[in-house]
Amino acid sequence: MLLTSLIERKRDGGRLTSTEFRALLDAFLREEFADYQMSAFLMAAFLRGLDEEELSVLTRAIIDSGVRLDFSDGGPPAVDKHSTGGVGDKVSLILAPLLAEAGVRVPMISGRGLGHTGGTLDKLESIPGFQVLIGLDRFRSILDEVGCAMIGQTDEIAPLDGRLYALRDVTGTVPSQALMAASIISKKAAEGISALVLDVKCGRGAFMTDREDAEALARTMVDLARSEGVQATALLTAMNAPLGRMIGNALEVREAIDCLSGGGPPALRDLTVALSAELLVSAGVCADAEDATARLGALLDNGRALARFARLIEAQGGDPDIIADPNLLPRAALKTDVLAARAGYVDIDARAVGLASVELGAGRQKAGDLVDPSVGFELHADAGDAVEEGQPLFTIHASTEAGAQIAGGQLAAAVTITESPHVLQPLVLARIE
Amino acid sequence: MLLTSLIERKRDGGRLTSTEFRALLDAFLREEFADYQMSAFLMAAFLRGLDEEELSVLTRAIIDSGVRLDFSDGGPPAVDKHSTGGVGDKVSLILAPLLAEAGVRVPMISGRGLGHTGGTLDKLESIPGFQVLIGLDRFRSILDEVGCAMIGQTDEIAPLDGRLYALRDVTGTVPSQALMAASIISKKAAEGISALVLDVKCGRGAFMTDREDAEALARTMVDLARSEGVQATALLTAMNAPLGRMIGNALEVREAIDCLSGGGPPALRDLTVALSAELLVSAGVCADAEDATARLGALLDNGRALARFARLIEAQGGDPDIIADPNLLPRAALKTDVLAARAGYVDIDARAVGLASVELGAGRQKAGDLVDPSVGFELHADAGDAVEEGQPLFTIHASTEAGAQIAGGQLAAAVTITESPHVLQPLVLARIE
Repeated sequence: MLLTSLIERKRDGGRLTSTEFRALLDAFLREEFADYQMSAFLMAAFLRGLDEEELSVLTRAIIDSGVRLDFSDGGPPAVDKHSTGGVGDKVSLILAPLLAEAGVRVPMISGRGLGHTGGTLDKLESIPGFQVLIGLDRFRSILDEVGCAMIGQTDEIAPLDGRLYALRDVTGTVPSQALMAASIISKKAAEGISALVLDVKCGRGAFMTDREDAEALARTMVDLARSEGVQATALLTAMNAPLGRMIGNALEVREAIDCLSGGGPPALRDLTVALSAELLVSAGVCADAEDATARLGALLDNGRALARFARLIEAQGGDPDIIADPNLLPRAALKTDVLAARAGYVDIDARAVGLASVELGAGRQKAGDLVDPSVGFELHADAGDAVEEGQPLFTIHASTEAGAQIAGGQLAAAVTITESPHVLQPLVLARIE
Repeated sequence: MLLTSLIERKRDGGRLTSTEFRALLDAFLREEFADYQMSAFLMAAFLRGLDEEELSVLTRAIIDSGVRLDFSDGGPPAVDKHSTGGVGDKVSLILAPLLAEAGVRVPMISGRGLGHTGGTLDKLESIPGFQVLIGLDRFRSILDEVGCAMIGQTDEIAPLDGRLYALRDVTGTVPSQALMAASIISKKAAEGISALVLDVKCGRGAFMTDREDAEALARTMVDLARSEGVQATALLTAMNAPLGRMIGNALEVREAIDCLSGGGPPALRDLTVALSAELLVSAGVCADAEDATARLGALLDNGRALARFARLIEAQGGDPDIIADPNLLPRAALKTDVLAARAGYVDIDARAVGLASVELGAGRQKAGDLVDPSVGFELHADAGDAVEEGQPLFTIHASTEAGAQIAGGQLAAAVTITESPHVLQPLVLARIE
């Protein structure tokens, strides 16, 4: 088989048979199909698309390139969540211990923040001592002990995805729905989970601003996961304003602790419970969403989910005392307030807030940048709230005066105050199964 | 400037400014823009196209990557021809000495055969001793001495084209009109010529089967050459049947000698004269095509062009005695005839004949394959001719019985014999200036 002719076929809008595509991917793994050939193929695939069968072949090849974990040991079902990324989204930190307490296992492999969106690993690493880069053996033993474990991508799982992503990152082929779907679903399927919930964000603070695009991606991922034997559902959720009231790594851990203590912003609690309930139903632990919601709410309110989080922190080398005393988390040197310029109803642009937080040091402009765990923003109003002139809208947590000043200007620009109230979107826009 | 963002822009159908595109190409030359990035860019450019200005930037960058020859020394104008490739096309071998004899200089840099089409270098190398891989110094001195010189691509001229072509060849991005136009025109402009004629072939034996595609490429190349200060015209010529009656390297040299002696197939002579006349008029040597045609015909008929070819052969290390005794050229061990299966009018598929000649060893399936200079086909009828049943249609010149047998079957399949005569296309379909 002439692999170059397969590039030509994709270039011209044709499709590859399963055998052909798998041969191309295997040749790439053996370094017999060069990086420069793969990047040309990826660009052709970006522009021409991959059909359902091609997507399935790619997904399977990524899974097969590494270890696929196995939880079919008769123990509790293993489940996980994936979010397409937003601003202020600390759901994973709450969901993992909450679900472990609810009786399932959560082998969660997460990523770092990039661009205007944050990442779970950065948030966890703001907890003093917390280790996210641990091998699969330790990952498995923490899971056995705590019921959940949260680590970063390892070369042992889906190494083909890492090689493809490294190429896509520098060749303009990242934002392809097909390539993204295969990348996400393969890594989740390789975790050996039996149920998956996808939080597909939509809006100006999301990767996808267009609702139809977001729904299409959700549909593709749900179908792809099922073809790999994973019971998947997706919630299409709004990401126009930040989720919750804290943005920044240590600040978001604080808010997660609030939520795990039965408090925190209602939107954050509601979304976490909704996503977690999807998993309990998919995994057959609860009969329906109502049952699951009640059970999950109780575990947040009675402190048991919080206690599980403490066990997780301790198992992964972190300091569990931060739960009783969140002041043990990194704290920024300076705090300054941004005040409302006039009275009215506030609208907060999640993307602009996210970009301001990156500028402040809470996130990354490019992979490899260091993040400052202490800095970020605290919101004093939610989108849609009525505010008075001069009322504090944000507290900026910064390391330097200059940083605080720049962020102040950016945040002021990220907020719009209107005279009349605006219609708020519901948080969950649609459910896809 | 983030070069990855330029890939993204081309991917999305946007255009690069001159500064941006030149920066990208210069970074590639410095190896700061990797092969895998360039191949993704080339695939995006293949699918999205390059506009006139981008094409011009690419062409100029290729020229600037190496030496640009200079013939502005007050001597005769320098001219050249480029053909998009056909079957049985030995025009260059006749045109170069003919034009040198007509008073212009012909610094011709040619290529090798690939796929179903032959290459001038392979034909020249069938002449015992003929050297085509010589440096620019020797090239210049042969030009001074003989008025024409015929060599292969050298790294000194347009090295960027070589690097881009090597990538395109293995990434499915060769047959892009824009990339082909830039590659061809840059190399010709780097020869330092003031006039260029393009023989853009069209038909089943040509690279382009569609007339509109061929016209568009011709138009693009003519405009691009002019933007580089080269007076260019193009002839759109038919390539449905082979050109002339000999196919194969040494056989084509024989037919070129016939034509330079005032004989040979009329189509070959007519096309060679038409292309040469374009150059004499463009270069200002002749007032019009009629004047040029008369002058060129005389130089073929009076033996002066042939004598110039002998001087060229000698200057490039070849044996000029082949002219008086073509039997000194390599000769195949076996000759067998293919006979007409029935009476009627013949139609000969140039592509099928070209592929059969490659199979026989006269050409290359892939770059680097060795060619057998002695083998090939001799036609005994032109497309459109009436033949009787059992009349010889081809003589196969082969090295082995097996090769002859396979070629016999392929040639029989390449010929269609119909009861009624078919309408023949004119050889020159259009002229583009």
